Amino acid sequence: MRTYEEFNQYVERIENLKEVMGVLHWDQEVMMPEGGVNARAMQFSVLSAMRHELIVDERLGELIEEMPEEVDEENESIYREIKRLHERSRLVPTELIKELSQLTSRSFPIWVEAKRKSDFKHFEKTLQLLIEKKCEMARCIDGDADPYEILIQDYEPYLSLSSIEEILVNLKDSLVPLIKKIREEGEDIKETLEGDFGLQDQKYLSEDVLNLIGYDWSRGRLDTSPHPFSMGNVFDARITTRFEERNFVDGLLSTIHEFGHALYTLSLPSEHYGTPLCGDMGMIIHESQSRFWENHIGKSLAFWEEILPIIELRFPKMKFGNPEKVYRMVNRVKLDNSIRVNADELTYHLHIIIRYEIESALIRGELQVSEIPSVWNEKMEKYLGITPENDSTGCLQDIHWSHGSFGYFPTYSVGSVLAAQINHHIEQDVGDIGELIRKGDYQYLKNWLGENIHSHGGKYTTSELIKRATGEDIKIDYFVEYINRKYSELYRI
Amino acid sequence: MRTYEEFNQYVERIENLKEVMGVLHWDQEVMMPEGGVNARAMQFSVLSAMRHELIVDERLGELIEEMPEEVDEENESIYREIKRLHERSRLVPTELIKELSQLTSRSFPIWVEAKRKSDFKHFEKTLQLLIEKKCEMARCIDGDADPYEILIQDYEPYLSLSSIEEILVNLKDSLVPLIKKIREEGEDIKETLEGDFGLQDQKYLSEDVLNLIGYDWSRGRLDTSPHPFSMGNVFDARITTRFEERNFVDGLLSTIHEFGHALYTLSLPSEHYGTPLCGDMGMIIHESQSRFWENHIGKSLAFWEEILPIIELRFPKMKFGNPEKVYRMVNRVKLDNSIRVNADELTYHLHIIIRYEIESALIRGELQVSEIPSVWNEKMEKYLGITPENDSTGCLQDIHWSHGSFGYFPTYSVGSVLAAQINHHIEQDVGDIGELIRKGDYQYLKNWLGENIHSHGGKYTTSELIKRATGEDIKIDYFVEYINRKYSELYRI
Repeated sequence: MRTYEEFNQYVERIENLKEVMGVLHWDQEVMMPEGGVNARAMQFSVLSAMRHELIVDERLGELIEEMPEEVDEENESIYREIKRLHERSRLVPTELIKELSQLTSRSFPIWVEAKRKSDFKHFEKTLQLLIEKKCEMARCIDGDADPYEILIQDYEPYLSLSSIEEILVNLKDSLVPLIKKIREEGEDIKETLEGDFGLQDQKYLSEDVLNLIGYDWSRGRLDTSPHPFSMGNVFDARITTRFEERNFVDGLLSTIHEFGHALYTLSLPSEHYGTPLCGDMGMIIHESQSRFWENHIGKSLAFWEEILPIIELRFPKMKFGNPEKVYRMVNRVKLDNSIRVNADELTYHLHIIIRYEIESALIRGELQVSEIPSVWNEKMEKYLGITPENDSTGCLQDIHWSHGSFGYFPTYSVGSVLAAQINHHIEQDVGDIGELIRKGDYQYLKNWLGENIHSHGGKYTTSELIKRATGEDIKIDYFVEYINRKYSELYRI
Repeated sequence: MRTYEEFNQYVERIENLKEVMGVLHWDQEVMMPEGGVNARAMQFSVLSAMRHELIVDERLGELIEEMPEEVDEENESIYREIKRLHERSRLVPTELIKELSQLTSRSFPIWVEAKRKSDFKHFEKTLQLLIEKKCEMARCIDGDADPYEILIQDYEPYLSLSSIEEILVNLKDSLVPLIKKIREEGEDIKETLEGDFGLQDQKYLSEDVLNLIGYDWSRGRLDTSPHPFSMGNVFDARITTRFEERNFVDGLLSTIHEFGHALYTLSLPSEHYGTPLCGDMGMIIHESQSRFWENHIGKSLAFWEEILPIIELRFPKMKFGNPEKVYRMVNRVKLDNSIRVNADELTYHLHIIIRYEIESALIRGELQVSEIPSVWNEKMEKYLGITPENDSTGCLQDIHWSHGSFGYFPTYSVGSVLAAQINHHIEQDVGDIGELIRKGDYQYLKNWLGENIHSHGGKYTTSELIKRATGEDIKIDYFVEYINRKYSELYRI
């Protein structure tokens, strides 16, 4: 019993230090005055070093070995997660972790400068070094494995690379011809929803919509930040969004996207706070939740029928037209857009696939860093029919590589695929989700997601969880069916 | 050299964990949704336990013993502060610290309820237990010393109890007759500055005034919270204030008070961030800074001459009259007020002295907890000529005892006394401060405080610092002279 308590103390500390860093991160992005960055960097460094020491502590290894035999299923999953963390972290030398941490700190401003000057060369050497160090890290963890698979496991520990790659390959095969067809045969959607939308009114609108779909303000808050994100735990899950004067749609959809993340967090099993059981099961499950709310709810016709009167109240001077017309504008395929974060639900995945193809080839040593700009532009042309204006709006647009995140991008697309699968199974249980939306019955959706996904927290691994929730493995069919139906109707092809 | 680096790592961690708890505290008071308290409590518990383990670590004790001989004056002061922390903390058994921490968590809601019901009996047993445990703690630290002196050292480690008590006794002897004289012979100030002051306009006014006196927004921010406070470090020193619809003066003066704290913090030696050298030298010095700005600047005639036009711009519908008249209203002695935080510059100290006399007697076992209400009311009548309506506005009004803070109250008054001493010496150097204010030259004041006090951080102990800044020990004469002159003029006695 005493070793069990000792183990629990490690867990409590490891988890709460992560939570604390989450609060500091939120504060830095949303509230902190600029000067604070000097102190904040040292605070992060102290907390992450102390957390790392706990994770790799030999005594923790012994305590994991001494797991009591009679442990129940829930506690077993705590051991499983802590063991994974412990073993993976122990394999990487502290010296390399320090190097990587310093390197990523240095890389960020270099990337910012390269992007500002639209000069890939300025970032090239740094990126090269980042790749080398990340590959070294992957080799430390498992010298025989595909290094890209090892890196993906930082974001999605339990879904195999082969199933992730199968989804991405199938996505490309389905979407490239569909986009081509829309470009060639689709009935053009010319009007847009551009106009003058005061930022304060957009904030009120986001609050209205969060009230409609039921965000628990006693455990959350909405703020703005340059990059929307969600942060927190079951007791305190905050979201941020961003607003643009000319465009209210993207900000509103960001709010709904982050709501999906927060809803997951707020429905975790609170009695297990301070353990991985009250945590999420990786980025793919997380992204499936945000994409479900953003795409399957937030971009649906039924939803726009419901919220248009609210929008008209907030922007009484604007003329929007009927919901069907607005729905078409919201879902317009942006055939000339080279920026991932501005992409629509359809072309978005080609933006991801380009990054996945390039980063996996880089990590596997099949592509040189210097080749990135030309390969990027070729792929953009081939998959999307677009040539980026320059590197700033091309291969330098995303922050991820600058802080060493290789293997993160695929979780966005696989999460969307999973969202469609979840959507299908909810509709099997209840019929058309549009009808629920028209009745304002979001509680049914929340209950379904809560019971089948959220409330399990970290209990089941990704594949187990998907199988329990949908009765089958992750598969692409529902997404392909959904996206073809939606866009064929929209573009009348 | 290696032991020196090891020592530095302890210091860095001990200091940064304190900073992190400061950010979490600010967040909790200002930003956190109510539900977050469950997770936050566990986060605090983890951080404070980890910090405590570092502080009492035997290895740290060895490293302190091994202090290199050739260490310079600045590093010596780091050793001095860490040694004090280490030795004091080691003397208190971990079990007692846990008990105290749990007891203070439980006490707060009991005090809230007692205050709400105005029922001292409801809080009596808890307060009794708090006193017993704090006395036990004091005995662990030094069984031969006056336990009240030991407790004071948590807030003011370096000024002796005898010099603090001498100041408080002299304060009482000077102020009680002055207040009596004002009550009996003073020319009544009947008008008040009450009115309707929109909260957003009050916020703008606070910002205007912070701009005037020069708050560095790149390293700070202003928010509202139920109890005004300041938080942070040299890179990020935030302040909060609170506003009331009917009264703009108290909110504005709170802003200026907290500015004084933040200015101290923002002028600490930033190159030593992460060590006690970049920290303050106790609560008396801190309070001297806030009181200097609040009382000697914020409540002066010259200042109201300068800010009245700004106030009139923010509240164009209000008629204020000439600056002299407003100055008299701002400084009106509240002869019928029983609440410490609403008190004026003069009666304030009697509110403190009552608490000091009661808490020191409680800790020394010279007074029973059950006697508090009657003794409180007797002293209020004797010193201030007031009888509190009930315990809620009497002996239950302050939060301090409910979280076990005994020995904190005296720092408020001693800080004010020191502020007057500092004011005197600045005027010796430059002449009338009113003239600086009328020229808008706050930089001179900041330079003086920066050079003589702030920039030393934790280098000198309290008494050394006072001697260096003012050329003498702390003494009450300047305060008595100042307060007599100011209030004799105001009340024409």
